[in-house]
Amino acid sequence: MIRPARLALIVAGLAAAGVAVAQSAAPDRAIKYRQNVYSLVGWNFTAMSQMVRGQRDFDPAEFARRAERVAQLSLMLDEGFPPGSDRGARTEALPAIWSNRAGFDAKMADFQREAAALATIAKGGDADAAKAQFGKTAGTCKACHDQYKAD
Amino acid sequence: MIRPARLALIVAGLAAAGVAVAQSAAPDRAIKYRQNVYSLVGWNFTAMSQMVRGQRDFDPAEFARRAERVAQLSLMLDEGFPPGSDRGARTEALPAIWSNRAGFDAKMADFQREAAALATIAKGGDADAAKAQFGKTAGTCKACHDQYKAD
Repeated sequence: MIRPARLALIVAGLAAAGVAVAQSAAPDRAIKYRQNVYSLVGWNFTAMSQMVRGQRDFDPAEFARRAERVAQLSLMLDEGFPPGSDRGARTEALPAIWSNRAGFDAKMADFQREAAALATIAKGGDADAAKAQFGKTAGTCKACHDQYKAD
Repeated sequence: MIRPARLALIVAGLAAAGVAVAQSAAPDRAIKYRQNVYSLVGWNFTAMSQMVRGQRDFDPAEFARRAERVAQLSLMLDEGFPPGSDRGARTEALPAIWSNRAGFDAKMADFQREAAALATIAKGGDADAAKAQFGKTAGTCKACHDQYKAD
C-alpha cells in the first residue's frame, strides 16, 4: 500500500504533468472537461457513422463497443455545465443552457436515453436495428446543438 | 427514423463543429484522442484523491461513480497509441511505447486491472479498502509514466 504522503506526491505529479483538475474547479476546467467528453463521443460516433453509411464494413462487436462507450460518456456530461461555466475558455455553449436549464437538461436526458438504447440494441447484434437507433441518437445530438450550441 | 442522406448531414455537421474524427485517422487525432481520455481520467482521479486525502468528505457514492468512470476510460486507451502516433501534435508519449510495445501494453494492463478492481471495491462501500486500492491504482499511473511519458 502507498502511504498518504507518497500518494500526495504521485497525484501532485499527475496534476503537474498536465492532467485536468477536479470538478469543483474553475469554469475553464469545466469547459475543457465537457469539450473532452464531447470529443470522445465524436471519436466513437464518427467510427460508427462510417459503418452505418457503408464507408467501412459493419463490425457488430466494434459497433457495440463504441455504442457502450458513447452511453458511458453521455452520463459524464452531467457535471460538465456547472453554473458560471457559460464563459471563460472558448466555448460554443449558449447562455440558454443556464437560462433554460430544465430545457437543456431534457435534451441531455434525450441523448442519454437514446445512447443507452443504442448500446442495448447494438449488443443484440441486429445491424438494421442498430443503424436505425444510431440515426435516432444522432438526432438527439442535433436537437440539442440547434438550441444550445453556437455553430 | 432519419434517412441516410439526413444522417450524413448531421454527422458531417458534428464533425464540422469541431468533434474529433475517427480512430483510423491521422496521428494528430490519435494523440488528441488519448490526451482527452487521460484528461478525463485525471478529472475523476483528482476528485477521488481529494476524498482520499481528506480535503473533502469521503462520499462513497461519488467515489464509486468516479472509480467506475476511470475503469471505463482506462479501456478506451487501447486505441490511443496506434503506430505512427509517436510524433505529430505535441505529445509527451516516449518512443519506447512503440519500440517496447509489449512492455507498454503490460503497464497499461496493470492500470486497467487495478482500475477495474478499484471500481469493484468502491462499489462495496468499504472506505478504507477503497482508499488503499486508490493508492495502488495511482501507483500504476506513475509506473507507466516513469517509463513511457516525458515529464
